[in-house]
Amino acid sequence: MFTHTHALQFEAKPDGPDPDFARKMQEVLGGQWGEMTVATQYLLQGWNCRLPGKYKDMLLAIGTEELAHVEMIVTMIDRLLDHAPLKPDAADRTKEAAAGYGQHNPQHLIANGSGASYMDSMGNPWSGAYVTASGNLFADFSYNATAEMQGRLQVARLWNMTDDHGVKDLLRFLLTRDHMHQQQWLAAMEELKADGLDGIPVPEAFPLEEELPEFAYTFIDASDGPDAASGRWANGPALDGTDNQLTAAPIAAHADAPILPPGDPRLFGTPPVPGESLLQKAKDALK
Amino acid sequence: MFTHTHALQFEAKPDGPDPDFARKMQEVLGGQWGEMTVATQYLLQGWNCRLPGKYKDMLLAIGTEELAHVEMIVTMIDRLLDHAPLKPDAADRTKEAAAGYGQHNPQHLIANGSGASYMDSMGNPWSGAYVTASGNLFADFSYNATAEMQGRLQVARLWNMTDDHGVKDLLRFLLTRDHMHQQQWLAAMEELKADGLDGIPVPEAFPLEEELPEFAYTFIDASDGPDAASGRWANGPALDGTDNQLTAAPIAAHADAPILPPGDPRLFGTPPVPGESLLQKAKDALK
Amino acid sequence: MFTHTHALQFEAKPDGPDPDFARKMQEVLGGQWGEMTVATQYLLQGWNCRLPGKYKDMLLAIGTEELAHVEMIVTMIDRLLDHAPLKPDAADRTKEAAAGYGQHNPQHLIANGSGASYMDSMGNPWSGAYVTASGNLFADFSYNATAEMQGRLQVARLWNMTDDHGVKDLLRFLLTRDHMHQQQWLAAMEELKADGLDGIPVPEAFPLEEELPEFAYTFIDASDGPDAASGRWANGPALDGTDNQLTAAPIAAHADAPILPPGDPRLFGTPPVPGESLLQKAKDALK
Amino acid sequence: MFTHTHALQFEAKPDGPDPDFARKMQEVLGGQWGEMTVATQYLLQGWNCRLPGKYKDMLLAIGTEELAHVEMIVTMIDRLLDHAPLKPDAADRTKEAAAGYGQHNPQHLIANGSGASYMDSMGNPWSGAYVTASGNLFADFSYNATAEMQGRLQVARLWNMTDDHGVKDLLRFLLTRDHMHQQQWLAAMEELKADGLDGIPVPEAFPLEEELPEFAYTFIDASDGPDAASGRWANGPALDGTDNQLTAAPIAAHADAPILPPGDPRLFGTPPVPGESLLQKAKDALK
Amino acid sequence: MFTHTHALQFEAKPDGPDPDFARKMQEVLGGQWGEMTVATQYLLQGWNCRLPGKYKDMLLAIGTEELAHVEMIVTMIDRLLDHAPLKPDAADRTKEAAAGYGQHNPQHLIANGSGASYMDSMGNPWSGAYVTASGNLFADFSYNATAEMQGRLQVARLWNMTDDHGVKDLLRFLLTRDHMHQQQWLAAMEELKADGLDGIPVPEAFPLEEELPEFAYTFIDASDGPDAASGRWANGPALDGTDNQLTAAPIAAHADAPILPPGDPRLFGTPPVPGESLLQKAKDALK
Amino acid sequence: MFTHTHALQFEAKPDGPDPDFARKMQEVLGGQWGEMTVATQYLLQGWNCRLPGKYKDMLLAIGTEELAHVEMIVTMIDRLLDHAPLKPDAADRTKEAAAGYGQHNPQHLIANGSGASYMDSMGNPWSGAYVTASGNLFADFSYNATAEMQGRLQVARLWNMTDDHGVKDLLRFLLTRDHMHQQQWLAAMEELKADGLDGIPVPEAFPLEEELPEFAYTFIDASDGPDAASGRWANGPALDGTDNQLTAAPIAAHADAPILPPGDPRLFGTPPVPGESLLQKAKDALK
Repeated sequence: MFTHTHALQFEAKPDGPDPDFARKMQEVLGGQWGEMTVATQYLLQGWNCRLPGKYKDMLLAIGTEELAHVEMIVTMIDRLLDHAPLKPDAADRTKEAAAGYGQHNPQHLIANGSGASYMDSMGNPWSGAYVTASGNLFADFSYNATAEMQGRLQVARLWNMTDDHGVKDLLRFLLTRDHMHQQQWLAAMEELKADGLDGIPVPEAFPLEEELPEFAYTFIDASDGPDAASGRWANGPALDGTDNQLTAAPIAAHADAPILPPGDPRLFGTPPVPGESLLQKAKDALK
Repeated sequence: MFTHTHALQFEAKPDGPDPDFARKMQEVLGGQWGEMTVATQYLLQGWNCRLPGKYKDMLLAIGTEELAHVEMIVTMIDRLLDHAPLKPDAADRTKEAAAGYGQHNPQHLIANGSGASYMDSMGNPWSGAYVTASGNLFADFSYNATAEMQGRLQVARLWNMTDDHGVKDLLRFLLTRDHMHQQQWLAAMEELKADGLDGIPVPEAFPLEEELPEFAYTFIDASDGPDAASGRWANGPALDGTDNQLTAAPIAAHADAPILPPGDPRLFGTPPVPGESLLQKAKDALK
Repeated sequence: MFTHTHALQFEAKPDGPDPDFARKMQEVLGGQWGEMTVATQYLLQGWNCRLPGKYKDMLLAIGTEELAHVEMIVTMIDRLLDHAPLKPDAADRTKEAAAGYGQHNPQHLIANGSGASYMDSMGNPWSGAYVTASGNLFADFSYNATAEMQGRLQVARLWNMTDDHGVKDLLRFLLTRDHMHQQQWLAAMEELKADGLDGIPVPEAFPLEEELPEFAYTFIDASDGPDAASGRWANGPALDGTDNQLTAAPIAAHADAPILPPGDPRLFGTPPVPGESLLQKAKDALK
Repeated sequence: MFTHTHALQFEAKPDGPDPDFARKMQEVLGGQWGEMTVATQYLLQGWNCRLPGKYKDMLLAIGTEELAHVEMIVTMIDRLLDHAPLKPDAADRTKEAAAGYGQHNPQHLIANGSGASYMDSMGNPWSGAYVTASGNLFADFSYNATAEMQGRLQVARLWNMTDDHGVKDLLRFLLTRDHMHQQQWLAAMEELKADGLDGIPVPEAFPLEEELPEFAYTFIDASDGPDAASGRWANGPALDGTDNQLTAAPIAAHADAPILPPGDPRLFGTPPVPGESLLQKAKDALK
Repeated sequence: MFTHTHALQFEAKPDGPDPDFARKMQEVLGGQWGEMTVATQYLLQGWNCRLPGKYKDMLLAIGTEELAHVEMIVTMIDRLLDHAPLKPDAADRTKEAAAGYGQHNPQHLIANGSGASYMDSMGNPWSGAYVTASGNLFADFSYNATAEMQGRLQVARLWNMTDDHGVKDLLRFLLTRDHMHQQQWLAAMEELKADGLDGIPVPEAFPLEEELPEFAYTFIDASDGPDAASGRWANGPALDGTDNQLTAAPIAAHADAPILPPGDPRLFGTPPVPGESLLQKAKDALK
Repeated sequence: MFTHTHALQFEAKPDGPDPDFARKMQEVLGGQWGEMTVATQYLLQGWNCRLPGKYKDMLLAIGTEELAHVEMIVTMIDRLLDHAPLKPDAADRTKEAAAGYGQHNPQHLIANGSGASYMDSMGNPWSGAYVTASGNLFADFSYNATAEMQGRLQVARLWNMTDDHGVKDLLRFLLTRDHMHQQQWLAAMEELKADGLDGIPVPEAFPLEEELPEFAYTFIDASDGPDAASGRWANGPALDGTDNQLTAAPIAAHADAPILPPGDPRLFGTPPVPGESLLQKAKDALK
């Protein structure tokens, strides 16, 4: 259950409007790596978590914080959309304005009346498919760490796409929180390992004796790049706690080319079982 | 440029048909974490990679291997679809068959004529949006490691959903390769760090002095779960190589509730600028 | 900014597991008219609202309540997924179980490990495109009222699809809140009208004298159903506060068939401008 | 069954080409609230309608009219695309042209050869998910009324985005028909109520005694906006025909925090049942 | 402009309900190759057609006919959904019923109240992206011919998935019309060629001298299947009216491996330009 | 199984960067008719092909070649994105630059760090739904021929949208290969016919005596365009090898308007079965 306060976690006020940047800012709101993803993902992982205690509590705490980030970015986009030009002639005072007009998202005006929406910078609506909640915390925390890396990377790029100090203040806050959250998920993975809950290879509980050991430590090289096998991934000790050595080998076939049986004739694939019309043709040919 | 051989990297032959499992197997072919995702993702990251040498070569090598995995799973699904029942009465020999009939994907027959397709187990088509290629290798390798974890997890679950030895042989191979590939991406992240190319927080090249230090090491708790701050993520030294300490604090507001200006009256939002029809109403009221 | 408490707004505990119903319940979680839609929609309308005061405050209040509904349905689905059968033989104790096995969503197990996800009952991921926030409160409240009607209708149908008392208790709560919320949005529309902020036709501020009056009060009948014009919509006084009368007329053409000019030859549409290869053919034919 | 005439219901001829506006016009063709949605939605509601007579006849009549609107907007877009520039240098006569070039939809040229397509102004393809046909006419007519409000709102905004008189003539027609259609659906809802077919709360046939009366008339306030409960929705008589009073209360929890049981170990969630590999590690540690 | 009559082009009445088959029938209503696609596609090609006369007239005539097919399939699905079971116990009279229950689409009941919707048999909503209208009639007629082939193939498969005589009567009609329409599009392609409007290679107006002749008649073999070059496509005269001969060759590289320059450091890709934090690390290392 | 070489099949090096054209080029990479579609489609058709020999071998050969085309276009887009402006002021040296800035895809920079992605020119992610593999080779080869026509058409249009010689060299190569591939699929269709594997109407094996002969050779005219029946499709001998004649007739109804029975009252459609609350209202009215 949630309660809401109108006060913001951090200020979200640009120096001035910028509909071009408003569109770009949508990427970190409703894009694959935007705040909608992390907010709803951490909450879902938390609600679905079948292990009571610190991990579940932490997931729900940070998911709730991320809702506040969604709120701030929506507010920022709303303000960037003030006074957006409705026609190109209105945009035409400078070449910079013409360029910015060309980049603006027309749905911001036509569909949302100068408001944000749950889409990315190319107008793709946010999708529940962006969210992963596998029930395996190690795999999910790895994804969460990635999300904070990709997210911070995008905010860092946006930082270089604007000179507006108000915008930069909010980006600064987001960059800092993503910095913290990267540490958070990496720490949580370490703790899962320390608590004996999972490890490499995830899921560790799958019995290794069911694997094929000859494929477990070999980098398979299927390309002619000369340096593919010169990295750590093909040399040195295994990273799964065993005393195996990583090595490399070219790709090789271990099974013959497959031969599929003919399909069910009632599905009319190729090859068909000759139907009456083909028979008729055969008969006609014999006349 | 690619060349193809008809021989398979590994055998993909079930003991017998099973249209229910054919549907489930689609998840690791065309689902978010399936082989289509990793094959096309590693190739795209490799092609886009602006750093020549071992990382680029490795990406193209493994992406090419993953294409062979797509091929094997397609072949397996094709064979699982042999003799699929076209009507429930044909499925009705046992309750098990009735249950399996209920689960089968009708598009496998109607649209594909007993063939695989690029979709997941619920019929969602595979999407290019599943692929991430950010240009930042550290962030992308973290995603790749996640993909191998989520992928191995799904295959391990499928392992418990079938008794078919032929199917299990292929799953065994996939589990083993995902085991190797988890190590591969973790090793590659270590190597990126060792090569000075990136580190925590990603992207490391963003100047930390632009951040707000008071938010960089604090776990913010926005929920009432009592154990949220009892993990490593809120205690002990920072994980970014600095000598800061991680700590915790309840969520707090740092800005007032936002007040947005009225919108452009030409967009007819609320509040509107009173138009003529409203004026007319006012006049009528005064009569 | 939000805070979260682990206690639930209402109980969400089924009498027993039911993976078939877990799939159906996804419709009111992640379907077009599910709780994800109303929660994120009311919040977005609230954040984007440019009129401070009661409407904005109310939107943020109810949007926050709806987040608690998302949480309860996720929890209910999680519990309905306990002990879900992994294979049809396990499901085969009764024909009822076989039927239920056939209906279950395999991603609930393969992708989510017995957890809910943001999808509808056919596995379509929830989409940001379900959310409307036009900036015009009258139009949006009308949509919100619809959402509560469609939502209550779906929950009422689910009510007849289960005998589980624990499930029915939660449905009872949802039905009651949707009852309240229907009243809420209809009351809010009345209040917008009373406050002079908008009315029929929405947006009222668009100057009526720009319209074509001959088309404003006529039901146009383009089909041969004999009773199409016998309803209130083609008879009696207008509903927009004017003293016009509604009437009916068959559909009629008011413009000639359009004739489009040829396309740009550089786009190679039909008709093309004859290129050299066609000329060459003509020359060859003349030889 | 349908018949078609080449003559248009209304003129669709711009004064001149404008590829920027052609893109914007796609919103009311193939967007969520565009003519494709209302045409196909009213027809589907009509075909699915299980009550013969005026409602069914009316739905099929108006759905058929809306097909003519699709046709006119397609024609308009085709003409706005005449002579569209293929390169920026061709667009470069004025800054206005440069701005317009930046906004044009490149698929209009590359994929459609100067033709319209079924997409919105950001290029999202029209989706069957936009269409609602619930089988409950009251709920659906409420959605239809909304569609005409959102649609008229978008056309009114487009009105302010162009100075082309030919375009404005068509927009004028669309604004007028949406004015009529808003009245139509509101009248139809009144008639459903008068005919005793449904009412608030929809669906009225669900037995109210199954509800929880303490939640049926209370606005629940989950945010700190001071005015949330000062509107009609929290004061005065109920809107469902009963003699209850609307009131307000802060959000409160009515159930304990949920505790989920551990998952099936065969799904490898967290917490897992310790598998052999973990056991082995434990053994190794004891050596 | 369209008019509608309630009478059907052909009967659409099953002998009895069958919710399993209702779901399957959705494939030819709202699937990629269903009637929604051909109806809206032929109309769009007709409206966009810039060549007045027989082709445009024919497109609009057949598109309008296809709308009647949409109507019939919707009607059939509605009737197949009568008396659909709401729970598995109601389905449990026979194993056949249990199997059918497992296959039914729950949205047919929850969202549509026993009605059809614009989706395919796996619940994917129909998409405007299924529609192609390129402005080049030859390319589009080729697609139309394909659509009638894929469509007839799917209906022929459905034919073998039911024993219901009423359903088969409608399928019979659809099979026959698809038979006619295959001829129609092939005839139209011939006529386009005869009228000198286009030909192989499409678009014929692109000047062949801009091509690279050494690649225009060579089947390039990139796989080791021994028979790949034994077909007509690698032997015999060209099919484009020239007197070239088709031949085959193994795939070969014609350019060096690409080397991309480093990215813009403001985008924080790999390799980055060392930022201050990396410099600091270097300094620290030198201490 | 595949192997990869870093060398390219053909050169992919523009004379200079052009982020506007980079976006447009995405259409033939990740659009419906782009190289991703044909590569993955031909491979899937090949893997699913149940007829060993020349057709299967050919499909896998050409699918593998198309992967090399994906690689070249990705490389081209990467290079076109070098030095892309991050802000409009940087774009503002000329009006041409301003126009180009307006057209660029912001995700190319924010999400991909100057790299290509699997999307079309409007940012829609590539979809597995673009791929057709029906199991019927004739129907699929017809689709493949279409894909090469639509693809070549789009490349020919792009040819006229750039003056860059390096870009034009790659387009030249793609135009030439699409020329060859059109011939290839048409030749393969001829060969299927010659081999007696299928023919018109596809699928030929469906028994024609199940059809309704009166509908098999009649062009049905549902529009008032005067020339609709003047083409080959309504005149002359049938194209299916029979000695029937094609003819034309206006559309006509062959069945009465459908009347659907009332729905299940437990689904609360209209008409409902009067529930208690309505009864109560009636009672109240009688008081």
